[in-house]
Amino acid sequence: MGQYNQPIPYVELTLDRSLEVELGRLLRLRGWRLSTAESCTGGLIADRVTDVPGSSDYFLGGFVSYAYEAKVASLGVSWDTLKTYGAVSRETVIEMARGARTALGADIAVSVSGIAGPGGGLPGKPVGTTWVGLSTLAGEQAESFLWQGDRRANKELSADAALKMVIAYLRKVVGG
Amino acid sequence: MGQYNQPIPYVELTLDRSLEVELGRLLRLRGWRLSTAESCTGGLIADRVTDVPGSSDYFLGGFVSYAYEAKVASLGVSWDTLKTYGAVSRETVIEMARGARTALGADIAVSVSGIAGPGGGLPGKPVGTTWVGLSTLAGEQAESFLWQGDRRANKELSADAALKMVIAYLRKVVGG
Repeated sequence: MGQYNQPIPYVELTLDRSLEVELGRLLRLRGWRLSTAESCTGGLIADRVTDVPGSSDYFLGGFVSYAYEAKVASLGVSWDTLKTYGAVSRETVIEMARGARTALGADIAVSVSGIAGPGGGLPGKPVGTTWVGLSTLAGEQAESFLWQGDRRANKELSADAALKMVIAYLRKVVGG
Repeated sequence: MGQYNQPIPYVELTLDRSLEVELGRLLRLRGWRLSTAESCTGGLIADRVTDVPGSSDYFLGGFVSYAYEAKVASLGVSWDTLKTYGAVSRETVIEMARGARTALGADIAVSVSGIAGPGGGLPGKPVGTTWVGLSTLAGEQAESFLWQGDRRANKELSADAALKMVIAYLRKVVGG
């Protein structure tokens, strides 16, 4: 499995529809099913995906793994990874995405772990630091962001970034 | 385990704060930790719970079990229950809540399964039909609702009902 593939550049997508509708369109085109693993977004990605009527055709489900224990129990993230790199890290979001994909037999999974604030900032990882990960059978990737908003804004920016990463990946794979 | 306890009456709560803030206050008072199992709400309950700063103190995580397979794989809902009673049923939401509680070692778990619409209505289960379940070590309960809104409104009404059920339970247990 090609872990840590060259990431797809994060681009500003131009869309004539919402991210979640575009995501659904591309998943249908590809015939793929999605799952999610969310920490700081707390379920917001899944909430947005399931705002689209018919999303049960391509969305299997997801995990809100808020506590360390949930990341380990539900997603199979290793304690070693959490201790060595922290919950907000490339390594953790990759394992979260992989765990969500394999636990539900999805074709593609996206994950988020970040520090939404106002508390929780760490040395070298200020409030707003967020990692987004993606896993498919063909490879895995992750990208980091630093948001400047309040707690809710940071959740929304993180959810946007996750939806955009899946869309960018699917566009590369399926075109259109 | 006292399955199908006498349900706590669904009352209109009078609050001087949002449901998710009141939920957090009561969980802290009781020293309990929460998990969630969501189908039709698609993560909205967890999203609202985690909008409260510091919610990681009492929210372990949750499951968005959209597909049948996710309800079985992540929450241990039995195929027999799904086939016999359907995904939108008292029996299924009880098993979902129990599964979310035991999977994460939570003290209390709440679950929702419903038909948010616009599609998915069934004979005897029109669009808007929603079951909310609750599980603690002391017992389990479930209650059904019939919402009249569109897809998003039905999700929000269901999330409200789930938060209110936990609040009503905690108020009974811990007082004010």
